[in-house]
Amino acid sequence: MLRKNINIQSVEVKTDNLRKVMQSAGIQACIIPTTDPHIGEYTPDRWKTREWISGFTGSAGTVVITKDKAGLWTDSRYFLQAEEQLNGSGIDLFKTGLTETPSFSEWIASKLSTGDCVGIEGEVYAASEAKSLIEFFSGKDLKVRTDFAPYDSLWENRPEIPANSVFVLPERFAGKSCREKIEEVLAEVKKNQADLTVLAALDVIAWLFNIRGNDVEYNPVCLSYAVVSEKETVLFISPEKLTPEVSEYLHRQSVVTADYEKITDYVQRIPAGTKVLTTPSKINYKLYSILSEKCEIKETTVHPADSLKSIKNATEIEGIRNAMLKDGVAMVKLLIDLEKGIENNETITELDVEEKLQKYHSEQEFYFGESFHPIVGYGTHGAIVHYEAAPESNAVIQKDGVLLIDTGAQYFDGTTDITRTISTGEVSETIKRDYTHVLKGHIQLASAVFPAGTVGMQLDVLARRALWKAGQNFLHGTGHGVGCFLNVHEGPQSIRMNYNPTPLEPGMITSDEPGLYLAGKYGVRIENLLLTVKEKTTNFGDFYAFETLTLCPIDTCLIDRSLLSPEEIDWLNAYHQKVYDRLAPLLSKEEKDRLKKRTSPIDR
Amino acid sequence: MLRKNINIQSVEVKTDNLRKVMQSAGIQACIIPTTDPHIGEYTPDRWKTREWISGFTGSAGTVVITKDKAGLWTDSRYFLQAEEQLNGSGIDLFKTGLTETPSFSEWIASKLSTGDCVGIEGEVYAASEAKSLIEFFSGKDLKVRTDFAPYDSLWENRPEIPANSVFVLPERFAGKSCREKIEEVLAEVKKNQADLTVLAALDVIAWLFNIRGNDVEYNPVCLSYAVVSEKETVLFISPEKLTPEVSEYLHRQSVVTADYEKITDYVQRIPAGTKVLTTPSKINYKLYSILSEKCEIKETTVHPADSLKSIKNATEIEGIRNAMLKDGVAMVKLLIDLEKGIENNETITELDVEEKLQKYHSEQEFYFGESFHPIVGYGTHGAIVHYEAAPESNAVIQKDGVLLIDTGAQYFDGTTDITRTISTGEVSETIKRDYTHVLKGHIQLASAVFPAGTVGMQLDVLARRALWKAGQNFLHGTGHGVGCFLNVHEGPQSIRMNYNPTPLEPGMITSDEPGLYLAGKYGVRIENLLLTVKEKTTNFGDFYAFETLTLCPIDTCLIDRSLLSPEEIDWLNAYHQKVYDRLAPLLSKEEKDRLKKRTSPIDR
Repeated sequence: MLRKNINIQSVEVKTDNLRKVMQSAGIQACIIPTTDPHIGEYTPDRWKTREWISGFTGSAGTVVITKDKAGLWTDSRYFLQAEEQLNGSGIDLFKTGLTETPSFSEWIASKLSTGDCVGIEGEVYAASEAKSLIEFFSGKDLKVRTDFAPYDSLWENRPEIPANSVFVLPERFAGKSCREKIEEVLAEVKKNQADLTVLAALDVIAWLFNIRGNDVEYNPVCLSYAVVSEKETVLFISPEKLTPEVSEYLHRQSVVTADYEKITDYVQRIPAGTKVLTTPSKINYKLYSILSEKCEIKETTVHPADSLKSIKNATEIEGIRNAMLKDGVAMVKLLIDLEKGIENNETITELDVEEKLQKYHSEQEFYFGESFHPIVGYGTHGAIVHYEAAPESNAVIQKDGVLLIDTGAQYFDGTTDITRTISTGEVSETIKRDYTHVLKGHIQLASAVFPAGTVGMQLDVLARRALWKAGQNFLHGTGHGVGCFLNVHEGPQSIRMNYNPTPLEPGMITSDEPGLYLAGKYGVRIENLLLTVKEKTTNFGDFYAFETLTLCPIDTCLIDRSLLSPEEIDWLNAYHQKVYDRLAPLLSKEEKDRLKKRTSPIDR
Repeated sequence: MLRKNINIQSVEVKTDNLRKVMQSAGIQACIIPTTDPHIGEYTPDRWKTREWISGFTGSAGTVVITKDKAGLWTDSRYFLQAEEQLNGSGIDLFKTGLTETPSFSEWIASKLSTGDCVGIEGEVYAASEAKSLIEFFSGKDLKVRTDFAPYDSLWENRPEIPANSVFVLPERFAGKSCREKIEEVLAEVKKNQADLTVLAALDVIAWLFNIRGNDVEYNPVCLSYAVVSEKETVLFISPEKLTPEVSEYLHRQSVVTADYEKITDYVQRIPAGTKVLTTPSKINYKLYSILSEKCEIKETTVHPADSLKSIKNATEIEGIRNAMLKDGVAMVKLLIDLEKGIENNETITELDVEEKLQKYHSEQEFYFGESFHPIVGYGTHGAIVHYEAAPESNAVIQKDGVLLIDTGAQYFDGTTDITRTISTGEVSETIKRDYTHVLKGHIQLASAVFPAGTVGMQLDVLARRALWKAGQNFLHGTGHGVGCFLNVHEGPQSIRMNYNPTPLEPGMITSDEPGLYLAGKYGVRIENLLLTVKEKTTNFGDFYAFETLTLCPIDTCLIDRSLLSPEEIDWLNAYHQKVYDRLAPLLSKEEKDRLKKRTSPIDR
C-alpha cells in the first residue's frame, strides 16, 4: 500500500511539472506514446516515458495531458490493470475498441480551440504516424510542435541508454558476410533510384551487420542507426558497446562506425537533393523530417532490407532446423514432466511450468535467452490472449482442463515460437470440438499449396473456416514472420484477416497459430512455424507450399476424430511420425517411450 | 477480300488525317482508348474511336499514333484477331502481358523528346486513369493536353448519340421509389461532408431514377448524367428519349431534367468552394477537371450510390428468385434438347445452342434480352475464356468431350448469369479430375460461413484450393457483382486473387465461377449466383453465408466421386433436390423425368 501511495503522489507531481513546461512552451495538449526512436516492439527503459508519467506498466497505451485533464488510452487486454494502476492518479482511463470511446486525437480536438498547439516528441514517433497526426490536427486548425521533449529535465533518474556490449554473429550462423548483405541492400537502394538509405529498425541493423546485443528485452539487438550509401556504410553505435572483436569485424567489412548520438548531425549534413530511400513506418519522425526538408525522399511501404532479411539463406534454414530439434527436446521434456506430475498428483503451478521450460531451453546448445515472455495459462487463464502468470494469479494445474503454453527461445542458430494446448485430465466434448476446429485450421493452412504471388490474407481463411462455420473466430493474426536469432515478431509478411501486400516467398518463416478464446472458460491455440518452400512448377507457374519446422507432439487426447477429414488425419499422423523420428535420437529410453505414445497415429 | 482492302486504305487515310491535325495542334503522340464518357464495359458506337481508326474490333485495346509510328496494345485474347485486322494498316501490334512488351505510356516516353506533348480526349478517360497518365508523363518531362478530340471533324458519318427512348421500371420490380433512393444517396453525400455529387455511371443512374433504356449492348441503360444535391436532383438526358410516362414519373419524384449535353455547362456553373463527392474511377476526366478547378473534391474509391445499389432490397431479391426459375427452365429445356439431339445423332453446332437458348430465354415472362454475348464453346473452344462462336469457328458438338455454356438474360425482374460444363459422351478420367477440382472450389465457396466485414479476397482461396494442390489455377476472378435488371458485371464487391476492400454484405449478389482452361484441350467452368445472407449472431458477432440463387443441374457424369468430401456430396445432393423441387412444377412430364435423372443424388 505504501508504495502505491508514493506512486500516486508522484504521478500528480509529474503531470503538474509537465503542465508548467507545457504552459511556458505554449502547448495545450501533450501526447506521450509507448514507442521509442527505433519503433520497436519492446521499449528500453530509457524511453518508457508513458510508464514513468502515468504509473501504467502495460505494453500498449497513450497518455494525453492537457491543462486540466489527463487520459490514458489502452486496449481491452489492460482495462483491469490500467484501472488499478491509474486509481487516484488524476489520469482517466479511455478504453479503446469500444464504440463510445473517442480516439485520443478526436478527444484532443474536442478539448482544444482553434490555433492551439499539440506537442509531441517526434523522435519517438514513426514518421508515418506523426505525419497522420499532423494532418489530422491541421484539419482541425490546430498546430503541432514535433520537438516537444522536456523529459530529460523532468524525469529524475531517467535511465541511461543501455551500454551493453555487442558481439559478432559468426557467419556459420548468419550464412552471409555483412559486406554481401550491404551490397544487396545497396542494389535495392539503386533499384529504387535512391543514393542512400537511413536505417533505424534494430533488427534490420543487427541482421545487416551480423551483430547481436542485449539492449532490448527478448530481442537480441543493440541500440544503433545506420546509413548505407555507395560512398560509405556507417553504423551509429555507442563506442563503449564495441569490443575489439566487433570493431575489427566491422572494419574488415568496410563499415565505418560513429557514435550513436551522431546520427542527427550526419543526417543534417547529407547534401541537399540527395535521393534517400525511407520507409516512414520504420524511421522516427525526427530523422524523417530532417531528411525530407532538403532531400528527395523515395518512400517504400516495406524497406528492401526488411524483405532481404525475411528470406532466410540456406545456413539460416539449417540453423533453425537445428534450433527446432533443441526446442522440441525441451518441450517434450516439459510435457513428460507434466504428465508424470499429474500421474503422481504433484502440485504444479503455471509459474512452475515457466521455470521448467526455461531450464530445459537453457540446457540446449547455443541458448541465449527466451524469445518472449512465456504464456502459461491454465483453464480460464488460457482465454486471456496475452496472459502472464504472476505470483498473485499463479494457478495450480488441476486434472480437469486444458493448459495453454506459448513459449520460445533464442539460440544462436535460430529463434523459436511454439504454442501447445494440452489436456490435464478428462475434458468435455465441447472442448474437444473447439480444439479440433482449431486443429483443422492449423492443418489446412500448413498443408496449403499456392501460386507465387499469394499474400497472407488469401490463405488466412484456411485457418478460420471450421471456426467460422461454428460461429467462432479468433481476433489476432494467424501468422507472423519470425527472425533468425532475431525478433520473434518480424515483417514484412503476415497471415491475417487484414490486407498486407507482401507475398509469401520461399525462405520466409511464418507462424501458423489459430486459436479460440472463451472468456471465463478456456483457451486453445496450436502454433508451429512454417517455412515457405517451392513445391512445383507447372504450366500455371510456380507453386509454393509450407514445410513445418516445429517438432513437438500435438495433443491427440483433445481431438474429436469425427470432425477431421481423412487428409487431415493423414497430415497429423505424418507430422507425428516426423516428430518422433527427429526427436527420439535425442531422448532417453523413458522419454522416447512416452513420446512414442504421444505421437502414435490415430485412426482415419 | 475487297472489303478488307477498303479497310486498309481507310485506316491509312484516317491516321494520316489525324497526324495532320496533331501536327498543327503541336501534339507528338495521341492516345485513343476503348472507353467512353461513362466508363462503361460496353462502348456505344458513337465512341468506338479506336475501332474506327484502327479497324480492330476487339473489346479491349489502346491505339497510339505518333508522327511516324502507330501501335495497338491489346491482350492475349485478341492477339490473332488483331494481327489479322491490323495487317497492312501501318499499325503495329503490341502484345500486353508479355514481359518484353513496353506499356504504351513507356513506349511513348521512349519515342518523344523533352517538352513534347501527348494528346488525350479527357472526356473518354476515367479521371483516375487520366490523372495517372498525366503524372507519369510529367515525370518524363512531357506535356499532356487533355482536350484533344478532333474526331468529330475527321470521322465521316460518325454515329450519333443513341436516341432510344427510355422507360420507367415499375416499383413492383424496383422495390423503392426514385425519391427514396435519392434521399439515401443525399444522406451519404452529407455523411461524406459534401454538398452534391455528379454521377456518370449509367447503371447507377438507371438504378437511382428507376429508368431503363437500350443505348448500350446488353446493359439496359440510357446515356445520361445526374447531379444530386440538397437543392435539386437533375437528370441530364436527351429530351427525345423521354416518353410522357417517364417525364411524368420523374416530375412526380421531384427530378429536374435537362439535356444530356448540358452537363458541362451545369458543372461549370457550380459555385466555387462547393464540396463535391466524386469517385475518380467512375467519372470522366473532363467533368472531374472542371470540378476540381474550383470545388472542394471529396474523393471516395467506391461511390456510395454504387454501394446502395449493390445491396438488393426485398422486392429485388424476390424478383431475382423469380428470374432464376425462368432461367432454370430455359437452361433445362436446352440441356434436354442437347441430350436428345446427341441420343438421336443430330448435328448440333455451337451457334445452334446459342440460338436455342435465346429462344428459351425469350419465351419467359418479362424477357428483355440477353445479359451478355453467350459463350458456347465445345472441346478446345471451351479453353478460350472469352470465346464467341462465329460462322467460321462454329464447331459441331461431338460425342466425346465437354461443352461449356456461359449465358444470361435480362428480365424485368432480374439479371441472370450461369455457366455449365456438360459432357456430350464418354470423357477421360483426367477431365473428370479437373472438373471435380473446379466443382470442389465452387462448393467450398458456396458453403462458406464468414464474419461481417469479410472481403472477397479472403474467400477466394476456397474456390482455388483443390486446383492449386494440383498445380492448376484460373486467371480470372472468382466472383463479380450482378445487378437487378442492370449490368451483369457490377461492383463494388468482387471475389478475386486481388484485394478489393469492399466487404460482402447481406443483399449482395455475387457470382461463384471457378474454372480451368487447358489450351488446345478443354475448358471447365461452373457458375452460380450467390446471395449473401445473414447466417447467425454469436458472441463473436454477425456471421454471413451464401444462398445459391441459380437453379440448374450440375453435370454429375463428369464427377470423380472419390475426390469429393462427404460434405461436398451432401451439398450437391441438397442443391439438386432444390433445383428439382423448384423447377419441376414448371416443366412437362418428359422434362420432369429427365430433370429427375440429372438431379438424382450421388452416393457418399
